[in-house]
Amino acid sequence: MAEIMKVHGSVISTATQRVLACLNEKELEFEFIPVNMAVGEHKKDSFLAINPFGQVPAFEQGDLKLFESRAITQYIAHGYAEKGTTLIIPGRPMATLSVWMEVEAHQFDPPMFGIPTDNAAVEENEAKLTKVLDVYEARLAQSKYLGGDIFTLADLHHLPNISCAMKTQVKKLFDSRPHVSAWVADITSRPAWSKVVAMGK
Amino acid sequence: MAEIMKVHGSVISTATQRVLACLNEKELEFEFIPVNMAVGEHKKDSFLAINPFGQVPAFEQGDLKLFESRAITQYIAHGYAEKGTTLIIPGRPMATLSVWMEVEAHQFDPPMFGIPTDNAAVEENEAKLTKVLDVYEARLAQSKYLGGDIFTLADLHHLPNISCAMKTQVKKLFDSRPHVSAWVADITSRPAWSKVVAMGK
Repeated sequence: MAEIMKVHGSVISTATQRVLACLNEKELEFEFIPVNMAVGEHKKDSFLAINPFGQVPAFEQGDLKLFESRAITQYIAHGYAEKGTTLIIPGRPMATLSVWMEVEAHQFDPPMFGIPTDNAAVEENEAKLTKVLDVYEARLAQSKYLGGDIFTLADLHHLPNISCAMKTQVKKLFDSRPHVSAWVADITSRPAWSKVVAMGK
Repeated sequence: MAEIMKVHGSVISTATQRVLACLNEKELEFEFIPVNMAVGEHKKDSFLAINPFGQVPAFEQGDLKLFESRAITQYIAHGYAEKGTTLIIPGRPMATLSVWMEVEAHQFDPPMFGIPTDNAAVEENEAKLTKVLDVYEARLAQSKYLGGDIFTLADLHHLPNISCAMKTQVKKLFDSRPHVSAWVADITSRPAWSKVVAMGK
């Protein structure tokens, strides 16, 4: 697997940031190919040949073409298990890690994702996030990270949306929960994530 | 890992059906514990102790407590790799399988999920599903199953929502695409799935 890894994406896309954070944690070299979404590059044939859904990021390594950010991070974490930060836990504990990766994708991501069109939507999103963060607070009172005692993909997958949330009015929902806010402070200060943030500036 | 596996869920829940289909494919014994959602059993403390989000299914095996259907199926497929149908492909091909598991969760599931409240929502859902199924048709023209040449979790995860869809007006969108309809006929006729359907009758 000596072929160069190529990430096609945009530094302002949270899904792209998820993959970049993972590559940085694994201390892997890669080529970043910016996709200019403002001019619709992600809907052109050359990009659709890698991701037929026309969404960033897309990933190439030789003849391997992947898309969906969480599939790409899992490929990197499993394929380069011995490099950089571990990010996965083999055996039975992997099941718990998988649970929290699914929670991120299905419980945490949606309320963050919605671009609210009115005040009612803002309130509904906040109400959902409040309930979700109550569960996170209880989980993080039991273990330092979501998947267990070490930082894993389950935590990493949250970074882009959490960083966005910290710039909005929902920041207060994180700040008011001691274990959640300690976890946010911990994971957002990782050097691998700081490099991603710096790319977007 | 000789402890009995327990699935708490409802036979009419698509997420529960996903886990049951997986257990049947692996030819594993398990105990099914019905959760009566009509009387709110999934919001009671005893259930919330297994899944704090109060959703079915939940899974127990000794002191291992899991939730999120796709995390449970992955635990079963990896943990019992040598039993029944393989369902996963080790090594680099697993990456492609992961892509299509993510596609199911993020591209396929949402348009199915929405309980449309008006005609505009029905039309929007159909328009989304049309685009998604065009990508599936192209994929299934290349390989017999989504993850490659064999039936895997990527296909299995679709079964509950596809079975629902086949009873609605969107059936025509599947029927009109030759590779998609052949795939649907193939995977829905698997004995492991027929057993799940029979449980719901």
